[in-house]
Amino acid sequence: MTSKKEKLSTEPYKGVRDFYPEDQAFFNYLLATYRSVAERFGYVEYHASILEPSDLYKSKGAENEEMVNEQTYTFVDRGQREVTLRPEMTPTVARMVAARRRELGFPLRLFSIPNVFRYERPQRGRLREHWQLNVDLFGSKSLAADAESIAVAADIMRAFGATEDDFEIRIGSRTFLNNFLKEKGLDEERGRKFITLLDRRSKISAGDFHTQMHELGIDAPSFDQLPVPSDVAEVIELVRSLGIHNVRFDSSIVRGFAYYTGVVFEVFDTHPDNNRALFGGGRYDNLTALFDDEPITGVGFGMGDVTMRDFLEVRGLLPAYLPPTKLYIAVASVENVPDALTIAQELRAQGVAVAVDFGDKKLADQIKAATKHRVPYLLIVGQNEVTSNTFAVRDLTSGSETKLSRKDLASFFLSL
Amino acid sequence: MTSKKEKLSTEPYKGVRDFYPEDQAFFNYLLATYRSVAERFGYVEYHASILEPSDLYKSKGAENEEMVNEQTYTFVDRGQREVTLRPEMTPTVARMVAARRRELGFPLRLFSIPNVFRYERPQRGRLREHWQLNVDLFGSKSLAADAESIAVAADIMRAFGATEDDFEIRIGSRTFLNNFLKEKGLDEERGRKFITLLDRRSKISAGDFHTQMHELGIDAPSFDQLPVPSDVAEVIELVRSLGIHNVRFDSSIVRGFAYYTGVVFEVFDTHPDNNRALFGGGRYDNLTALFDDEPITGVGFGMGDVTMRDFLEVRGLLPAYLPPTKLYIAVASVENVPDALTIAQELRAQGVAVAVDFGDKKLADQIKAATKHRVPYLLIVGQNEVTSNTFAVRDLTSGSETKLSRKDLASFFLSL
Repeated sequence: MTSKKEKLSTEPYKGVRDFYPEDQAFFNYLLATYRSVAERFGYVEYHASILEPSDLYKSKGAENEEMVNEQTYTFVDRGQREVTLRPEMTPTVARMVAARRRELGFPLRLFSIPNVFRYERPQRGRLREHWQLNVDLFGSKSLAADAESIAVAADIMRAFGATEDDFEIRIGSRTFLNNFLKEKGLDEERGRKFITLLDRRSKISAGDFHTQMHELGIDAPSFDQLPVPSDVAEVIELVRSLGIHNVRFDSSIVRGFAYYTGVVFEVFDTHPDNNRALFGGGRYDNLTALFDDEPITGVGFGMGDVTMRDFLEVRGLLPAYLPPTKLYIAVASVENVPDALTIAQELRAQGVAVAVDFGDKKLADQIKAATKHRVPYLLIVGQNEVTSNTFAVRDLTSGSETKLSRKDLASFFLSL
Repeated sequence: MTSKKEKLSTEPYKGVRDFYPEDQAFFNYLLATYRSVAERFGYVEYHASILEPSDLYKSKGAENEEMVNEQTYTFVDRGQREVTLRPEMTPTVARMVAARRRELGFPLRLFSIPNVFRYERPQRGRLREHWQLNVDLFGSKSLAADAESIAVAADIMRAFGATEDDFEIRIGSRTFLNNFLKEKGLDEERGRKFITLLDRRSKISAGDFHTQMHELGIDAPSFDQLPVPSDVAEVIELVRSLGIHNVRFDSSIVRGFAYYTGVVFEVFDTHPDNNRALFGGGRYDNLTALFDDEPITGVGFGMGDVTMRDFLEVRGLLPAYLPPTKLYIAVASVENVPDALTIAQELRAQGVAVAVDFGDKKLADQIKAATKHRVPYLLIVGQNEVTSNTFAVRDLTSGSETKLSRKDLASFFLSL
């Protein structure tokens, strides 16, 4: 090898992210928050490989065939199998539930936090890979299941520190929309146009919306004033009984075409600069029908890590970074390394997270390293400290020092 | 859509696994154990996408070009970029460290628990996808760093409940082997054969090993009796000072060709039926040189989830499965669902994980569902219970019941 060899780029692959310790710490906070709320509602975690047979995404008709070909990472393996990096988790969980429907008890509550891939132009909030909480309840037709799903979503928002003023839950109904289409006598094509128009409503002007509704023979103001349908009314009442009040009927909520068959909802950011849907979900009734003839009803939602991070950032709700390491031990000279190791190991045995510097650099540079790592406390091991058995613990933020005997070190850190 | 449509298989893609709740619970236990030990030693977590530019794996010469072409998932994306699903994490972490070498402090301690992919025939313990703890320390030439790496490995084994009798740490040295090759006057090709032979030692018979060593002009018994080299002796002494005693020099430990340049180690299962290396690691000195001209020394190890699970299973160290859900609320009739929801929400507010049945099925079947979910306690909400404000909490394992007033429910579960 020659030193003149061309050097490799340190950039990650286009549209995906590296998670350095600060990014990963936020990600772990996200996971822990998702997990704790989902588990409180009786959901249990599952997971699967990102690799799925491509057929899993093609089976829903021509529209999906196009999606698989153009918007996913799909390739042929050496065994001539067509493989896709999952673009969403719902088909996977439907596959897993169908595979063990006899052993699994229903209602079945499942959650997962998978990464999903979309082949698209990277842009803010639309990377090629993101992580997505998926919360699903299978096997109950009760509207209480729809209400619970919304309650889990709301409790996650609160667990992140959002108040009821920060977001609003808008509930719609596919049943209501289907009835409305029938009443208005819209054919299948015009019905599809209507649903697509509703789904795009927040992205177009009020004027355009009215015009396009008019072209479909619908008066937009009257549509917006339609009474709350009975399924939505019942869900809203149950959600309120669960202590969640920032919820209302919105006749325009449709959640696109895919899957949904009943009550649907979206969680909206109420921030004036970002009044958009953060995430949503709803009821779907026939996903497992791809695998066998007995469909299992499901209700659930998904939320992405990038959207959530943006929301928390704008609201000032991002937690400050603190490494798990509590103490950095620097050494006056390499001769002190064995003592530093022993002291560190004593502290670890009592549950204190400790990093040791092995003295490759001089003391001032060791302290700089501790600061770069954002470790809150520093202790220097030198001959004097070892002989006197007394150590000065330095708070690296304030600069203040506390003198402690060796046996008192652990309790100092454990009481922080 | 016709109901006679061909149904999709519920199998996952070949060679990868679905993680149902019990599998995921074990996986989470694995992650939590890895994390807690690594963090105690001052390591911080990072992560990256599974997608990497293929060049990352090709740059180490012809041998690797073959590996990339034949043993990885590599494909060309729509932008004509060659992409690989990472087969290992070390090149990724080297890339990330090189990208921010000015901002990161050294010594730098990093860990990650990524999934990695190999395109190979599925067999026991050798799936196409597995998860692998990676623990690396960058920027210290001190042998204390080598010792620390081994101590982290040993402490992970102990954290899983393994005793010093269950495993043995064997330490070798690439420096020692290189010196030995020079002394014996072996040329490059014979040197390579020698290293390969040592690496395959545990897979061939003692007789074959002796014969093949003899062909290289080396007397196997003398080789095995060589004195402990000074780097290994110092590492062993430091490791012992950290309270780890099941460690010894083994002149045959080489860890294959890739990366390693100094002290290397392997953790062996001492079980008579499975006396093999579980995992290992060592020092590598020039990985970041792919990206720039200033190499950063590293020392680290990787351990796979499948090997670890097999080890724990054989040793009877697998934890019993318990779902996070503590209580299952069944309802005498659908009229009781609103009360069940309110009681559940009260308990959740106090930190109890509760699942509610919405009464889609009769009571006996609701109880069966609770049992299938392995939830330990059951409570039935009916009109009598609501009126009397008294609930019978049933232990689903023993069948015993405890009568409690509504206000005492939370403390019952929190004191378990």
